Amino acid sequence: MRILLINPNTSVAMTERMVASASRSLAPDVELVALTAPHGMPYIASRAESVIAGAATLEMIATHQGGVDAVVIGAFGDPGLIAARELFDLPVTAMAEAAMLTACMLAQRFSIVTFSPTLTAWYEDAVALSGLQGRCAGIRVPDVPFASINDVQSELESQLVELCLRSIETDKADAVILAGAPLTGFAAKVAARVPVPLIDPLDAAIGQATLLARLQTIPARAGRFARPPAKPGTGLTRALGAWIEHRPM
Amino acid sequence: MRILLINPNTSVAMTERMVASASRSLAPDVELVALTAPHGMPYIASRAESVIAGAATLEMIATHQGGVDAVVIGAFGDPGLIAARELFDLPVTAMAEAAMLTACMLAQRFSIVTFSPTLTAWYEDAVALSGLQGRCAGIRVPDVPFASINDVQSELESQLVELCLRSIETDKADAVILAGAPLTGFAAKVAARVPVPLIDPLDAAIGQATLLARLQTIPARAGRFARPPAKPGTGLTRALGAWIEHRPM
Amino acid sequence: MRILLINPNTSVAMTERMVASASRSLAPDVELVALTAPHGMPYIASRAESVIAGAATLEMIATHQGGVDAVVIGAFGDPGLIAARELFDLPVTAMAEAAMLTACMLAQRFSIVTFSPTLTAWYEDAVALSGLQGRCAGIRVPDVPFASINDVQSELESQLVELCLRSIETDKADAVILAGAPLTGFAAKVAARVPVPLIDPLDAAIGQATLLARLQTIPARAGRFARPPAKPGTGLTRALGAWIEHRPM
Amino acid sequence: MRILLINPNTSVAMTERMVASASRSLAPDVELVALTAPHGMPYIASRAESVIAGAATLEMIATHQGGVDAVVIGAFGDPGLIAARELFDLPVTAMAEAAMLTACMLAQRFSIVTFSPTLTAWYEDAVALSGLQGRCAGIRVPDVPFASINDVQSELESQLVELCLRSIETDKADAVILAGAPLTGFAAKVAARVPVPLIDPLDAAIGQATLLARLQTIPARAGRFARPPAKPGTGLTRALGAWIEHRPM
Amino acid sequence: MRILLINPNTSVAMTERMVASASRSLAPDVELVALTAPHGMPYIASRAESVIAGAATLEMIATHQGGVDAVVIGAFGDPGLIAARELFDLPVTAMAEAAMLTACMLAQRFSIVTFSPTLTAWYEDAVALSGLQGRCAGIRVPDVPFASINDVQSELESQLVELCLRSIETDKADAVILAGAPLTGFAAKVAARVPVPLIDPLDAAIGQATLLARLQTIPARAGRFARPPAKPGTGLTRALGAWIEHRPM
Amino acid sequence: MRILLINPNTSVAMTERMVASASRSLAPDVELVALTAPHGMPYIASRAESVIAGAATLEMIATHQGGVDAVVIGAFGDPGLIAARELFDLPVTAMAEAAMLTACMLAQRFSIVTFSPTLTAWYEDAVALSGLQGRCAGIRVPDVPFASINDVQSELESQLVELCLRSIETDKADAVILAGAPLTGFAAKVAARVPVPLIDPLDAAIGQATLLARLQTIPARAGRFARPPAKPGTGLTRALGAWIEHRPM
Repeated sequence: MRILLINPNTSVAMTERMVASASRSLAPDVELVALTAPHGMPYIASRAESVIAGAATLEMIATHQGGVDAVVIGAFGDPGLIAARELFDLPVTAMAEAAMLTACMLAQRFSIVTFSPTLTAWYEDAVALSGLQGRCAGIRVPDVPFASINDVQSELESQLVELCLRSIETDKADAVILAGAPLTGFAAKVAARVPVPLIDPLDAAIGQATLLARLQTIPARAGRFARPPAKPGTGLTRALGAWIEHRPM
Repeated sequence: MRILLINPNTSVAMTERMVASASRSLAPDVELVALTAPHGMPYIASRAESVIAGAATLEMIATHQGGVDAVVIGAFGDPGLIAARELFDLPVTAMAEAAMLTACMLAQRFSIVTFSPTLTAWYEDAVALSGLQGRCAGIRVPDVPFASINDVQSELESQLVELCLRSIETDKADAVILAGAPLTGFAAKVAARVPVPLIDPLDAAIGQATLLARLQTIPARAGRFARPPAKPGTGLTRALGAWIEHRPM
Repeated sequence: MRILLINPNTSVAMTERMVASASRSLAPDVELVALTAPHGMPYIASRAESVIAGAATLEMIATHQGGVDAVVIGAFGDPGLIAARELFDLPVTAMAEAAMLTACMLAQRFSIVTFSPTLTAWYEDAVALSGLQGRCAGIRVPDVPFASINDVQSELESQLVELCLRSIETDKADAVILAGAPLTGFAAKVAARVPVPLIDPLDAAIGQATLLARLQTIPARAGRFARPPAKPGTGLTRALGAWIEHRPM
Repeated sequence: MRILLINPNTSVAMTERMVASASRSLAPDVELVALTAPHGMPYIASRAESVIAGAATLEMIATHQGGVDAVVIGAFGDPGLIAARELFDLPVTAMAEAAMLTACMLAQRFSIVTFSPTLTAWYEDAVALSGLQGRCAGIRVPDVPFASINDVQSELESQLVELCLRSIETDKADAVILAGAPLTGFAAKVAARVPVPLIDPLDAAIGQATLLARLQTIPARAGRFARPPAKPGTGLTRALGAWIEHRPM
Repeated sequence: MRILLINPNTSVAMTERMVASASRSLAPDVELVALTAPHGMPYIASRAESVIAGAATLEMIATHQGGVDAVVIGAFGDPGLIAARELFDLPVTAMAEAAMLTACMLAQRFSIVTFSPTLTAWYEDAVALSGLQGRCAGIRVPDVPFASINDVQSELESQLVELCLRSIETDKADAVILAGAPLTGFAAKVAARVPVPLIDPLDAAIGQATLLARLQTIPARAGRFARPPAKPGTGLTRALGAWIEHRPM
Repeated sequence: MRILLINPNTSVAMTERMVASASRSLAPDVELVALTAPHGMPYIASRAESVIAGAATLEMIATHQGGVDAVVIGAFGDPGLIAARELFDLPVTAMAEAAMLTACMLAQRFSIVTFSPTLTAWYEDAVALSGLQGRCAGIRVPDVPFASINDVQSELESQLVELCLRSIETDKADAVILAGAPLTGFAAKVAARVPVPLIDPLDAAIGQATLLARLQTIPARAGRFARPPAKPGTGLTRALGAWIEHRPM
């Protein structure tokens, strides 16, 4: 089974770190193919940047969907997720949604811990999109800045563990999602120091994409994810323009 | 007062029709400046197309924001609305949100009537984003297709009036929003045939933008619409890239 | 355009202050006509008092509706708002509802700051009536009393600004409504000291009434705001009794 | 135990019918004292009329509260209920709220059947006030008019039974509330023809008032039902004005 | 009128305390018949234990339902409540549901104060089952342990009163439910020290059972509480097995 | 990886059918171990029966948890699910919850189609427990009875497909869950006749259990799924009694 992991950020280093971390919980028959965004921002962290990255995500899937069994959008905030489900025939998962749905089987209320206050609004939107507000105990962020996004796990380790503990004691969370692609792999590192399950969103997203591929359900031909009618566009990338204008119905 | 009307579709004819219709309910001191999207689709009608148009909307505002008092996004579905509020210092309104908020002062529950089933999912998302699901009586669409989007008002006139009546009788709506840029001006035409207020989303969006500009509130420097930190991007249009990288804080 | 501003309190001084403040953001073609309640309480501040003031509001509109384009109920808590929409043919707005709907275009979550804990329950009811609970970050009040309702703005200035700041930092509000007729005009005074938009409910209510009047929608003849059947009453004021018994259908 | 039954309508015949019907399920130690509104409308049937009747209800309780253990507001729609709880020290119940809360112990979802479409909006507001929307299966009304409100039970008997059956089959209700003071006593008459529990709102409201009186809880001195500060009023009835200005704290 | 009080715990001492406390607010014509669970745990305090006790509750009702007018399940958390309503023809109430519904007539928002953090999750589930989350201000528990469940009222008296006060001041509750069978009778003891109504769940549950019995509604023969089809079972107690297999329809 | 599949019904034939069907989408490294309930009902179909089966489920897990990586409760309605998560250290999934969470990645709104109206109330409770009511388009059941639960797939095949189509067209579902253990395997049979994804709950539950086991999260030692304190019980099965009284903390 081939799963396409889309990194909607332009940082190749982050893509490599995600692939390394993901190998830990892959099913034995899964092969991961990873892509880095060719344009955009090195790390998207707002709704505005997510709109721009969402368009890039659609372009990347349009270009690389051949021979793939499922797609994972590798950013918490899920840029382009709904649009991708509408446009393509493959199962598509993303880090925020998959982490929250997975958490619902380990917790009645989950919290989200991340590394920067800038991210909060974007992540709140992801919670709202899922319809799981009633099961979200809150989002917690450190009140100290970090120097480098590549080292955020080590720079903020004690603060992030402390936020996990406060989300349990104060917010009454039963599980904690460690959110944001730069925190990939962090859950496993600190699991022994937090008394509830910690969710790694990339593991969850790849696991759920694997599950969906195994179910072999048909693509929607009706409802909210039926494809919109074909139409011509101007100024789109070649593969995306062609798929929108000529895709098989 | 200058209000910038962004048409995120590439159809100049639609822009012209919107400007003509809007003049009917402008305040005496308002000047409307209209723009048509330089690339994208002639008529966006899905979440996938809205993601692409949202990115284009941000580019258009970045380029043309000088000397403007408020911005109106001229598509029901509100592509790029939240992103634009986050990124720019101007008040920004859009057709779906403005129509729904306005309807809340004329109705306890409003319905949305539009011209194509393809639009339903996109409009549902706009309702959910507003948090007004509890006041939305439903979305109704004709079960007959139309030949030309430019003539959809005349082609479907009787069906649309009939849907208004059914949304009142069956769905228990107290006001009806006639949704989608191609229906701009239709509310005034058929008002005498429907026994509740009909909302024209473009009138509402321009009226609300005018109101926001008059209030002269400051741009947010905290909260969900505080600007994200500046950062470099690759592959963005010149004005948007410059604004994201160098905008004043 | 003539807009009737109803002060449901018996304080003429407050009416005068509201008129003076409102002139700042009126559209150039709007004339404001203000009325003070002939009986009731000098300042209504509870649900019980609001029921009594609601009946007085209906009497005032019945008497003075001639030649008017829209009505504004000049109390946060909106006494008689739904009843007035049901009974009369004019657009009617009120301070709480208009402030909240306006805030929804400047914020994803708004808070309400007011000057007395007595008001909290009444304002909570107004939030619930609007269906916007999901967008309200909370209501904050000072924990110190004030000596005179006429001087409450100057007496509590620093406390109210502090509450605005706490509603942003603690409650995560993106805009703040300064609620209660005695705070009319306060938003403009302290805007520079609070890093998010501040909403003046009277400005919002008059602005929204102006907008509704411009839209020229028809009065409801069906749905929740269709007029109830005419019937005789005993013990009502002359104009209200006549309107209820003989109003044109 | 003395329970004061307030009929906020001016119809003495209706008061008498309510007293007669209520005697069926009174506890052995309860004495019912009934009052008819001295001014207002013969039968209130809208939110506007309910505002007027709410003020009258407060006047009636202020005048007659001496020696009473609990108060029942005898109209479905509950005019003045929240205001009365705020203002007086006695337990107060009302027909809509009591019927819905009682139904929650016999059903997971209840429906409301009443005799006139005019009442729907008012009753919907009562459902919303209770916070029980999630347990309300809907409100059903006949599509035929009635000639006399005094004979509405016999005129519409078959239609009302049919609506009960449809609310079970179509709306999936598990119990039905027969709403509106003119339907008092109807539930018992037709119980054998409907396969789920039928709730008589007056029985429920008197039963709940009895229960509250037995519990002997103290009046609130904090929270949403703490009494607002005393203040002078103009144009109020003598007893209500005195209570608002001089009531013991 | 005979009311069957089921104690789903195996502690006879607790049953006796409940009977003694309940006599305080019984209607004059009510006789209480109390039963203690023959197997299970001395005090159930979790969802797992509640599932086990729920099955025991059904067995006890099946065995002792003859000659009874209504049933009260004497544990806050309401083990087996929905199942009992589905299976038997008698009105059934339980402590959590009855306390919350009763509180809704004395408060707009109630809080729940109990004696052990272990109980929180179970009680949260009871709130959710009722659909009254919007009216629950929260659940508060002491942060100190107790030595004996029989003496918990005296051991924790000052802490529990303090929690009541904090739920009013911090959580904005208007009434407080003192939850858990071991707190039966505690509300009356400390009422003078808390400025809002205190609800005793056992009093509420017996009062509501009395009220339901007086209403003499028919058992459901349709809807969610219609009896499931008869079927054979293996390994059930004799009375329950016989009722499930042979009960009259 | 070993996954324990609990059939809480007493029908061995159903267990065998579930195991056969599940083998279709198992990951290559998963071994399924299946158990049939030793007492209870041949097919549980109500909340009352689910309470009884929930207690039996706990007994079965207590006895057979050794050497197991995750548990699947093989009944839609999820008897004992929350209790099992509270009591045991293994990941536990169940058919209703897993099917709904999985559907959320293929649909914005899912519907549930099952084979008997008796099941509706039980399944509604499962939807409510998940907090996903906002994403559930409804539950549909045939209006014709079936002769044998073992042949329900063939007896009702055309009716069930028709209900799937109606849930898409009328209820606006984007995916359909085919609910109830007797429908295991039916989704694959009829997928080509329904234009949206069909979810097989057993496949979803086993897939999610597999995913949870791969994540290797720690058992909760805090929050809603922390184990309740050990205590003695009377009348429990040996393994369950021992686990409740002596389990390691």
